[in-house]
Amino acid sequence: FMPIDRLNIFSDAVFATITTFMVVPLKEEVQSYDVTEDLWTSLVADWYRFLVFVISFLIVSTLWQDHVWILQKVEHVGDVGLILNVLLLLVASVIPFLAALMGDFYRYPLTSRLFGGCILTLSVVQGIMIALAFRRSKMLSDHLEGDKTKKWMSVEFLSTAGLKIVLSALSIGIAGASVPASLVLLAVAMFTDWICIIVIAVYRSRKDQSFSTGIRTHLCRRFVFEDVDIDRTQTFTDGVFIIVATLIILDITADSLVPLNGKMTEEALYEALLDKKEALLAYISTFVTIGMIWYINYSMVYYIQRLSRLLLLFNRLTLLFVSIVPLGFQLVSLFSVEEAGTNENIAVQFHCILILFTSVFQLLFWVAAHWKRDKHIASSLGGLHRKRIFCLLLVYPIASLVIFCAAFSTSVFKVNTIHAVELSIPFIFLLIKLIIELVLHKRDSQ
Amino acid sequence: FMPIDRLNIFSDAVFATITTFMVVPLKEEVQSYDVTEDLWTSLVADWYRFLVFVISFLIVSTLWQDHVWILQKVEHVGDVGLILNVLLLLVASVIPFLAALMGDFYRYPLTSRLFGGCILTLSVVQGIMIALAFRRSKMLSDHLEGDKTKKWMSVEFLSTAGLKIVLSALSIGIAGASVPASLVLLAVAMFTDWICIIVIAVYRSRKDQSFSTGIRTHLCRRFVFEDVDIDRTQTFTDGVFIIVATLIILDITADSLVPLNGKMTEEALYEALLDKKEALLAYISTFVTIGMIWYINYSMVYYIQRLSRLLLLFNRLTLLFVSIVPLGFQLVSLFSVEEAGTNENIAVQFHCILILFTSVFQLLFWVAAHWKRDKHIASSLGGLHRKRIFCLLLVYPIASLVIFCAAFSTSVFKVNTIHAVELSIPFIFLLIKLIIELVLHKRDSQ
Ligand SMILES: [K+]
Ligand SMILES: [K+]
Ligand SMILES: [K+]
Ligand SMILES: [K+]
Ligand SMILES: [K+]
Ligand SMILES: [K+]
Ligand SMILES: [K+]
Repeated sequence: FMPIDRLNIFSDAVFATITTFMVVPLKEEVQSYDVTEDLWTSLVADWYRFLVFVISFLIVSTLWQDHVWILQKVEHVGDVGLILNVLLLLVASVIPFLAALMGDFYRYPLTSRLFGGCILTLSVVQGIMIALAFRRSKMLSDHLEGDKTKKWMSVEFLSTAGLKIVLSALSIGIAGASVPASLVLLAVAMFTDWICIIVIAVYRSRKDQSFSTGIRTHLCRRFVFEDVDIDRTQTFTDGVFIIVATLIILDITADSLVPLNGKMTEEALYEALLDKKEALLAYISTFVTIGMIWYINYSMVYYIQRLSRLLLLFNRLTLLFVSIVPLGFQLVSLFSVEEAGTNENIAVQFHCILILFTSVFQLLFWVAAHWKRDKHIASSLGGLHRKRIFCLLLVYPIASLVIFCAAFSTSVFKVNTIHAVELSIPFIFLLIKLIIELVLHKRDSQ
Repeated sequence: FMPIDRLNIFSDAVFATITTFMVVPLKEEVQSYDVTEDLWTSLVADWYRFLVFVISFLIVSTLWQDHVWILQKVEHVGDVGLILNVLLLLVASVIPFLAALMGDFYRYPLTSRLFGGCILTLSVVQGIMIALAFRRSKMLSDHLEGDKTKKWMSVEFLSTAGLKIVLSALSIGIAGASVPASLVLLAVAMFTDWICIIVIAVYRSRKDQSFSTGIRTHLCRRFVFEDVDIDRTQTFTDGVFIIVATLIILDITADSLVPLNGKMTEEALYEALLDKKEALLAYISTFVTIGMIWYINYSMVYYIQRLSRLLLLFNRLTLLFVSIVPLGFQLVSLFSVEEAGTNENIAVQFHCILILFTSVFQLLFWVAAHWKRDKHIASSLGGLHRKRIFCLLLVYPIASLVIFCAAFSTSVFKVNTIHAVELSIPFIFLLIKLIIELVLHKRDSQ
């Protein structure tokens, strides 16, 4: 038997890698934009690429979440489980390719069928894993041994997997008739766990004295009070942040040198590299911004002692937007040329919207954790540190909103302002820290 | 104060990501090879790209190793330490770009100066981190409190960092005169820890009664008996394996669709995708091969209770070759066309050499662990499991040697043979496992 911990970390890291790779086709597409054309028009024309990105993000992060649910119930993994797990990861890692294919050939039923086939395979593998875990009860954690809980748990897990198989098979079937409908079905298939939980709650509270109290108890238990593995969430989150922050250097490495000529003089090379400093500056800004957003996440999760399904949802939404943040930086540095005119302002606004959504979902995570605070947050969090975290959480929403509004002015917005703001935010964080230290020091000396 | 664990895992993952990104410029270069030209000639003509790859791998993995050394001595990290750490990671993540630049413009002193400047910055940041750690002794682990050990430790650490600064500054200075000499100096700078340990051992054993016994004691203590953090080594190793295994899907995602035409018919798209099945098969083979090599690593490290500098060296060499394995698969699928003729055999041989080196260094790791076995290997490892691990370790060297020799035959070698062999190896592993289970079962029933 293999210890579950290393398998979990390994799987989390693979899922995080797959999640972040899906933004690559978007980045390739954005590079081909004409800077003189209106940016909103170009972005809107690519709506289906963004839709496919969101749906594939939803699919991979749900897959990860299901993996956490299943393995949270398991104590040991045998060889068959190990092989199924590798098969799951291998099939899942093809999703970025299928998503890119889908973006390029949106109207072809074939791509939609391939995508559905991939999800169907994944659901079948998951179903086998669940069946295996519940059959060999020695693999289950001890706290699940209560017969009634175990029975309902197995009903819920198997019906979730079954419904997912049915929906993805249906999605393949109707791809010929309508590609959008097939995509919608795949998206719905990602909420089968919610659907099954609600249906089971309704069924179980049928016999209770008060239907509405019963259903609220059942739903509350599953959505608010049930633990999600915090360590695994942290590994997955850290993995996404790390790869998103460093993925841009890969772009600079692979592509930025192509226009340079191998036979140029040393001076010409120096000039050419100076031209690349925009890209390098954009990289440093992205790295710092994503590092700071990670730092906020780290500060919050440090005090979280129980992670509910609701909190996890906000965490996933944060990750969804974080993984597009490099796209915003890319657009900003792409449109920072003179020919772009006021298009530069639109690029800045797009960038601000991404940062705004990321930081607002972080804020919602923390606000949601304060509802039933004693369950979610460790009692060691004092009032002062709570204020500090709220201050940190407000910096990015305010900064991005101010820049967003300022970019409406007709004068051409300088992209360097963005970099100046982004690179000054660590100092604001340090200032907040310093003020807290001073207050603590004053309080101690009194 | 921040707990050291999450910082360590975060840094390990960033270093692993940077390490694997360095193969990207090699992959881009290989894609432009002419399949009708002799492959050995093309590869030899790119010797400096491979040299730059090896040197940058050496630099990043030494950087990671130094990070482990420094933080192994530290208990807590304050804000200044945290910022220095982020700065270190940020500067380190530019190395893949500088390596790509170096590969493209090998003869220009400017690229060599930029590379040297990057290493100089990193060495200075490391030096500040070390000075900080030794000044605030409350940050040091308790077992280092012995005054004499601490003094020599600080001398060793600071002289290592100082020598590194001097060598990289020198490397920038002589870049104008000779680019190769500047590169050699950078490579030497990566062994400053070894140099300092040896010099200090000679100095300290000067006063001992027997010089040769004294020096052997000192060196043995630092090279063989000193612990390296096994958890961090595992995180770094896993990170490299995961990103190497999945990086190819990024290639397929970003590049493989370019030749397809957006206005083709559904049938034409289907045909075009069938042509891509080679690339997908190569991906699956790579994923499976790297997964199996990871499994061997996992099986060995499971029983390792003490990791010495020597074992770490073999681990790093394994990782060096693992990170080029995808290049071998890429060449094999690139040269599997009819025009390539016997070039296909050379591609297969190149692939086999990579697998051979990877697996031989894994074997050497295990053999080295058997020297002073009671120190390195947990006593829980029975004779049967030791045999199993040796069997696993022999599969890849034998398979790659056999295919390498078979590829010398003048008949054109079919690339599918490679995939068939690679995909059958998991079954060989399962067979070995089955035999062990049978023997154990028989032994139990006796
Ligand atoms: K568990
Ligand atoms: K490319
Ligand atoms: K290139
Ligand atoms: K926590
Ligand atoms: K430590
Ligand atoms: K494309
Ligand atoms: K171990």
